[in-house]
Amino acid sequence: MSKPLSFQQVVLKLQDYWASEGCLIWQPYNVQVGAGTMNPATFLRVLGPEPWNVAYVEPSIRPDDGRYGNNPNRMQQHTQFQVILKPDPGNPQELYLDSLTVLGIDRAKHDIRFVEDNWEAPALGAWGLGWEVWLDGLEITQFTYFQQAGGIALDPVSVEITYGIDRIVMFLQDVRSVWDIDYDGQRTYSDVFLRSEIEQCIYNYDTADVDRLTQMYTLYEAEAKSALAHEPPLVVPAHDYILKCSHTFNLLDTRGAIGITERVRYFARMRDLARQVATAYLEQRQRMEYPWVEKTAVSSQRSVVSTSRPRETGHMQSTRQLTNLVKQGASSEPTTFVLEIGTEELPAGDLSSALEQLKTAFPEFLKQHKLEADEIRTPIGTPRRLALIATVAARQPDEEVERKGPPMKAAYDASGAPTKAAEGFAKGQGVSASDLAPYSGDDRYIGVKKKIAGRPAIDVLAENLPSLIASLKFGRTMRWNASGVTFSRPIRWMVALLSDQVIPFEYAGVSSGRITRGTRAAGSPDIEIKSADNYLEALKAAHIVVDPAARQSTITGQIKAIASKVGGSIPDDPALLEEVTNLVEQPTALLGSFEEKYLALPKDVLITVMKKHQRYFPMGRRDDFSRLLPHFIAVRNGDATHLDVVTHGNESVLRARYADADYFYQRDTQRKLEDYLPRLGTLTFQEKLGSMLDRAHRIEALAPRVAGLIGLSGDALKIAQRAARLCKADLATQMVIEFTSLQGVMGREYALIAGESEAVAQAIFEHYLPRYAGDWAPQSKAGVVIGLADRLDGLVGLFAIGLAPTGSADPWALRRAALGVVQVLIDQPHSFSLRQALQLAAEVQPVTVADKTIDEVIAFIAGRLRVVLLDQGYRYDAVDAVLAVRADDPHRAASEVAALAKWMQEPDWNDVLSNYARCVRITRDLKERHALDTRTDKEPATANLREAYDRAEAKVKAQPDVSTLMTELRGLQGKIFDFFKDVLVMAEDELMRRARLGLVQHVAALSEGIVDLSKVEGF
Amino acid sequence: MSKPLSFQQVVLKLQDYWASEGCLIWQPYNVQVGAGTMNPATFLRVLGPEPWNVAYVEPSIRPDDGRYGNNPNRMQQHTQFQVILKPDPGNPQELYLDSLTVLGIDRAKHDIRFVEDNWEAPALGAWGLGWEVWLDGLEITQFTYFQQAGGIALDPVSVEITYGIDRIVMFLQDVRSVWDIDYDGQRTYSDVFLRSEIEQCIYNYDTADVDRLTQMYTLYEAEAKSALAHEPPLVVPAHDYILKCSHTFNLLDTRGAIGITERVRYFARMRDLARQVATAYLEQRQRMEYPWVEKTAVSSQRSVVSTSRPRETGHMQSTRQLTNLVKQGASSEPTTFVLEIGTEELPAGDLSSALEQLKTAFPEFLKQHKLEADEIRTPIGTPRRLALIATVAARQPDEEVERKGPPMKAAYDASGAPTKAAEGFAKGQGVSASDLAPYSGDDRYIGVKKKIAGRPAIDVLAENLPSLIASLKFGRTMRWNASGVTFSRPIRWMVALLSDQVIPFEYAGVSSGRITRGTRAAGSPDIEIKSADNYLEALKAAHIVVDPAARQSTITGQIKAIASKVGGSIPDDPALLEEVTNLVEQPTALLGSFEEKYLALPKDVLITVMKKHQRYFPMGRRDDFSRLLPHFIAVRNGDATHLDVVTHGNESVLRARYADADYFYQRDTQRKLEDYLPRLGTLTFQEKLGSMLDRAHRIEALAPRVAGLIGLSGDALKIAQRAARLCKADLATQMVIEFTSLQGVMGREYALIAGESEAVAQAIFEHYLPRYAGDWAPQSKAGVVIGLADRLDGLVGLFAIGLAPTGSADPWALRRAALGVVQVLIDQPHSFSLRQALQLAAEVQPVTVADKTIDEVIAFIAGRLRVVLLDQGYRYDAVDAVLAVRADDPHRAASEVAALAKWMQEPDWNDVLSNYARCVRITRDLKERHALDTRTDKEPATANLREAYDRAEAKVKAQPDVSTLMTELRGLQGKIFDFFKDVLVMAEDELMRRARLGLVQHVAALSEGIVDLSKVEGF
Repeated sequence: MSKPLSFQQVVLKLQDYWASEGCLIWQPYNVQVGAGTMNPATFLRVLGPEPWNVAYVEPSIRPDDGRYGNNPNRMQQHTQFQVILKPDPGNPQELYLDSLTVLGIDRAKHDIRFVEDNWEAPALGAWGLGWEVWLDGLEITQFTYFQQAGGIALDPVSVEITYGIDRIVMFLQDVRSVWDIDYDGQRTYSDVFLRSEIEQCIYNYDTADVDRLTQMYTLYEAEAKSALAHEPPLVVPAHDYILKCSHTFNLLDTRGAIGITERVRYFARMRDLARQVATAYLEQRQRMEYPWVEKTAVSSQRSVVSTSRPRETGHMQSTRQLTNLVKQGASSEPTTFVLEIGTEELPAGDLSSALEQLKTAFPEFLKQHKLEADEIRTPIGTPRRLALIATVAARQPDEEVERKGPPMKAAYDASGAPTKAAEGFAKGQGVSASDLAPYSGDDRYIGVKKKIAGRPAIDVLAENLPSLIASLKFGRTMRWNASGVTFSRPIRWMVALLSDQVIPFEYAGVSSGRITRGTRAAGSPDIEIKSADNYLEALKAAHIVVDPAARQSTITGQIKAIASKVGGSIPDDPALLEEVTNLVEQPTALLGSFEEKYLALPKDVLITVMKKHQRYFPMGRRDDFSRLLPHFIAVRNGDATHLDVVTHGNESVLRARYADADYFYQRDTQRKLEDYLPRLGTLTFQEKLGSMLDRAHRIEALAPRVAGLIGLSGDALKIAQRAARLCKADLATQMVIEFTSLQGVMGREYALIAGESEAVAQAIFEHYLPRYAGDWAPQSKAGVVIGLADRLDGLVGLFAIGLAPTGSADPWALRRAALGVVQVLIDQPHSFSLRQALQLAAEVQPVTVADKTIDEVIAFIAGRLRVVLLDQGYRYDAVDAVLAVRADDPHRAASEVAALAKWMQEPDWNDVLSNYARCVRITRDLKERHALDTRTDKEPATANLREAYDRAEAKVKAQPDVSTLMTELRGLQGKIFDFFKDVLVMAEDELMRRARLGLVQHVAALSEGIVDLSKVEGF
Repeated sequence: MSKPLSFQQVVLKLQDYWASEGCLIWQPYNVQVGAGTMNPATFLRVLGPEPWNVAYVEPSIRPDDGRYGNNPNRMQQHTQFQVILKPDPGNPQELYLDSLTVLGIDRAKHDIRFVEDNWEAPALGAWGLGWEVWLDGLEITQFTYFQQAGGIALDPVSVEITYGIDRIVMFLQDVRSVWDIDYDGQRTYSDVFLRSEIEQCIYNYDTADVDRLTQMYTLYEAEAKSALAHEPPLVVPAHDYILKCSHTFNLLDTRGAIGITERVRYFARMRDLARQVATAYLEQRQRMEYPWVEKTAVSSQRSVVSTSRPRETGHMQSTRQLTNLVKQGASSEPTTFVLEIGTEELPAGDLSSALEQLKTAFPEFLKQHKLEADEIRTPIGTPRRLALIATVAARQPDEEVERKGPPMKAAYDASGAPTKAAEGFAKGQGVSASDLAPYSGDDRYIGVKKKIAGRPAIDVLAENLPSLIASLKFGRTMRWNASGVTFSRPIRWMVALLSDQVIPFEYAGVSSGRITRGTRAAGSPDIEIKSADNYLEALKAAHIVVDPAARQSTITGQIKAIASKVGGSIPDDPALLEEVTNLVEQPTALLGSFEEKYLALPKDVLITVMKKHQRYFPMGRRDDFSRLLPHFIAVRNGDATHLDVVTHGNESVLRARYADADYFYQRDTQRKLEDYLPRLGTLTFQEKLGSMLDRAHRIEALAPRVAGLIGLSGDALKIAQRAARLCKADLATQMVIEFTSLQGVMGREYALIAGESEAVAQAIFEHYLPRYAGDWAPQSKAGVVIGLADRLDGLVGLFAIGLAPTGSADPWALRRAALGVVQVLIDQPHSFSLRQALQLAAEVQPVTVADKTIDEVIAFIAGRLRVVLLDQGYRYDAVDAVLAVRADDPHRAASEVAALAKWMQEPDWNDVLSNYARCVRITRDLKERHALDTRTDKEPATANLREAYDRAEAKVKAQPDVSTLMTELRGLQGKIFDFFKDVLVMAEDELMRRARLGLVQHVAALSEGIVDLSKVEGF
């Protein structure tokens, strides 16, 4: 095709294509929606058992994606093309790829990738698993196996394909901005949409009236409820109003009028309505007796569903024929086994996890089923296949077993001839009576020894491989077809061979066979595997590097070579390398470049985009990696054919993203960082706790007081104060709104540009540290102080208004905040009283904070501290013993746990502990506290103990820590032992008894305020 | 095509077709709209000078068209396909007809008609002229030349084509119900839409909350205003909210929550907003300097616009060549002239009117331009052509004229030789000085007589025919192209021949020529007219009956023949016959039938549908027309080819309409008429005057009191009371909601079914009489009484709250009501005091009615009465003389006017009047009223007059009417004359003067309370 298709031609072609594949062509909805998913043709029709294949355009409105028409590919309105295939036709990816061919996209020339992307619409109670489809790095489609809608599990599952038409057309026409798209051969996208886009952005961001929108929301919700209250419920009218609620919510959100609490509440309200609508729709269809269920049983013969059938049916027939062959001619020599589970693209993490699981599970599986293996290879795989290879015995070994029969005296008659009972037993065991002998376990009975022949490996495998596959666990799994099997992604084929024979079984609706598939770039051709011994060779011939280790080293080699060619270096990044390795079957690294001018952008921005968004390897100068080069390395899934095209595509994507970032950066730096503060007033934090600006003010007020607690003063204090003032300002900048993960990073950057000192800028950055496990800790005191003020403010405020996390719900990430507090304080070189700090935080809250709340927060933080300490490898009893006393001071607690743990290693630990424990146990339940009165008791053991106690008490009082305590308890140990040996504590004489108990009580009390040793094992 | 297209195939084909014709393919809008017109791709883009060709699907929502899915073709959601061509490409009808061919509709097999339909959207300030397109009687498309939007005149005009896709698909698939449509080859329309349709109907009619909708409207309006208040205005966001206002208004209307006042107010509010949006959009484009204006100048070469060019250009060239020929070879013999103005289908009324105008204008035109005509034929024409034929002289006659020159004494010098002045004059007149002679008008001057040769007719005609065409006036005219010419519908070609020569001129962007076009059925082929003499013959050969009289008699003959074949008769119906004659070029009557079961429906329903909706001739039994036969006659525009197909189509349409009516009828008759009363409570009449139920209650209360005024009692009164109770109930029935013109008719019908007496039923019907000029008058007293109560209630109530009609605005049709009062009362055999009746009406109003209001209502009714009497042919002075006194009693007023008018015809009228007038004039300005005192004056003339006055006064007092008065005045005439002759009224003696003035005053006062003769001409 010489001239690329216009926008409208793409739409028309897609309609034609999907109509020819049996889809009903539907129309965009007449209520503003954020996505085609919300159109009742998707949201309702995916529910229930009835088949439904539909395709339609959906101009989709996402107010907060608007950029006033200034962005090359972000708009508040973009155009989707939505396809629903229900049930899964078995080959939806292939149908989709064919549709791209129709648009003129030759898959051999491009890198088309399915990159994990799980979709969730909390307001609709809907989610699914699937991918973003990447075309030379550009996300062009969302491909989802829809698992749930309106809170109802979908059965059958629907395949949802959502094309981003704007993106595809930009790609086809090779234009850099959506606004340059040729719409109809005459007008551009800008001609027809730009003014409206700008106006809608102004409306959405600047003029939409919050109060009126809130009223509209309420009215819509009431109408939805009233439609649902009708008998029978009015499904579509109610759904229409939910959509209006949803759009209105989006507008309110864009206006910054929705804080996290309100968001949660709005979502819950919408989800509840969506659930009711979904339920009502299902009931309606049920009352109608699912009229379409039968229809398509017939019509599927000629529609979407049919296209995949021949392939599957073919497999099934061939395996059945082979089964018979197998039964007849099973060899008994050790032989090669291969299992390949062919899937749609597995998420990178799931691939790693599956291989790890199989590494253990496969040898165990063979052992369990008594299949001896000469060699078991480490499991291998690619995004589209998991493979096991081993050399196994052709049969299980034979076994001898003995069965117990009737009592001897009942087995033979007087003449010694076998009775009927013996004959019956022999017959039942398939032997003759003459084979019977006394049972070896108990010779009052007869028995028989039998040899059980081992079963052929092929039968054992055929029977049990399904449960091996079923044993694989994934973080999130999905269903896709009538088998109801769950897996990471759909299983589409299985190769199972023992030597040259198919091991016949069926799993997840797929029959095993000898046909694998080639690469996506090659069109996934069928490849027949003659024998298990040829498997690796066959894949190699298909250019598939099936062993991850080999792939990884290939990639490493390629990127090193490329980097050195341009004088750059690629730093080690094992996580990225593993992910990239797991995204390709046939890796070919390529060198991409971007305009040098973008190097002026903050490095973190450049790297974030390359790594997180695009999975590119950033490249630094060989001598100084911190100085980036205007290059990147991408790893294509495919060979080097048309690598220039793929490179061009990836460069375009990166350019667009950098143009985006540059736009934000230029806009942001037109004003000083401090000037963004007022705008925080438009961002709701929580309705009772005010705006983000209120919160920033609280942190500003709190920081110097926290600084006081750690003894900061002078310049250091001034730095902390200034940084506290500015620490949240970057949240109002475009860059951070776009790349949330750059909060703090941009704060530092923009602070420096605005002329703040290095120290202030650094503190702004550091107050977020550590952001995740293993992240850097804050290096400056100012960073520590602001980080604490930030987190403690959040914890106290939200707990005070009853928003402590419950169950798994933690919308404000308070667990993360508490963990941050713990990590920061543990790293500090001194004690820090949480209670004191929390009381200061309480004073700046706009709500009353009860003492109980502070207790709760301390307990909550202690919970995180306990996890941290356990993760560090300490015994739970050591941790609990210390935390029972030291929860208020994480730093102190951590060092005390370390001390206690060390003591627990001492050889005399048990002796010391048990003698001390005796003191505690004997006095634990006493109500009365007795005075120290050793004058009454003249026993030497008592005097000795008393004397030793006095010394110990003084030491412990002087330094109340675990080490001192334990040292003293060690010293007391013998005295305690002697005391209990020589003296009857519970003397008849009451005075005597009270005196002795008093002494024991005092010894027991030595640990008070230091550690609760009763929590220790063996106490 | 063996298998008809599915619904979605029709959509896809239309998209492809219009895309290939250069249209941009747009998407349905994401806000609920009543029509594709409201999509900004139409509403905004038709504004301003920029070209725009677009096509798109638009699912359109009209809540009050919903029928709970029970109707075969009425739904609250139907699917439009909208096309906008801007500017008019010159051949939009042809492009449209070609699109039908693409859908498989062969125009030779069908009757495709363009039937006048003028479109108006008051809420959008938009209107246009055009047609419904009928396909074998089925309305499938709305075709409009869009003249105005948002109150702004459109320049250029846009062509708007709105396909009713559902209808077209029903036709293609030959299904009787929209629900049976095959949507995609697999599912039906019912499958995908029915449940939703039913639910939306329940929501729209039954559950939508009026209060909440009202609030939404207010919020939307406020947001629209705020978007418009932004600088610059946010056009599209504002438009979106106007659309939401409009949809919400429709819902409120469907819920019956909008009375006429509110409707007017809502419309005004929406229109005002629409105007602001339109203005803002235009200003925006202007600021952008209309970026598309240039673009299409280029691109039009290959798009829509081009397709029509060759034809027009061709015409132009050929006419230019002919012009030269004409100049050279004009003959001078009387010769045949023909002018054919080829148009798109003229409305039936406009065709009649144009022919009528030309009948006068054409002869005058020839006379004015001095073209002698041997024969001028009556103008003829069809919907697509207006034609003039005459035999005219080839040249104007020559003329002799005389011009006045300089004074004689300045013309010749002393030698008698012509001066320079004379030479100059001669030269100026193109003669030699020797031709000069004394000017015949005044021989002090010289002059010259010249012969002016008549110009060739062809030149005169070429010069002046444009103004003849321009002189045609129509009720509503339209513009369509850059010429700015207005006409009833676009002019597309012109034939103008004098003998075999083209009369060359251009009008409305079209050049005259010799090419006419054949019938639509034949594809409007070009037909060359060799000579004016061949014109009629050529049209005849093309099967076009161009003479309306001939067409009408053809039709009459055809329908008579068909009727007699089935034993039926068609009553004379000149209006219908004229309309049908004006809808066709080639009439072919056909016999259609409908199921006998529908004869059970009320006859008025059947006839209304046949005549008003379909322009069919209903057929009655020959012996009794009031008994309908299950047949109708339609007149096809075309020949008899495939007449069965056309018949089938027309029958289907009628069947669908009757099925509709039957459905309403069955539903309506499930309950008694009285049971519909409560539902009137949901219909707002006027917010201050309550619901229609309140109004019905007022009529019920008022009727017996009005009955009292005309002396009704006993059974007659009871009938009136019962009928008054029920008279408005039918307004709540489905049938009347659907066919408003059947109000009263259905009331009668349903009353009888409910078991009411004949008399009650008849009174219900009659209270609306007369409904229009020339309609029946009510025959029963009960009908009269209720009719008066109904109208007087409305007049008093609405005047009381200040809603008297102003200017041309009369939303409650109060003029019609007043006229009804007048017509009914004139027909009554007795007097009736409006004031008394209005006071009774005032007593039942929910608002206070001032006396002034009653005066205003009486004056308002009098205004109608005056018009009625003038229409009856009475002299205005007679009418005014009587009405000055008798406005309160229309019946009396009418008979008095008749009497006065008769008197005015009497030979002695002037004498009687003038003598009496003398009495009036002489005393008119006197402040004082003098007593009768004739004893003072002994003059015999005085005594005579006094004696005659006394007798007359007694007579007039006994019977105070015009006849008595005039008889007596006639008797007094001589006495008055003598009195003034013999007696000096203004005597010097004061007593004498007072006595004489007193007598004259008394005579003058004789007419008081009877007639104000001072209003009479000649008084």
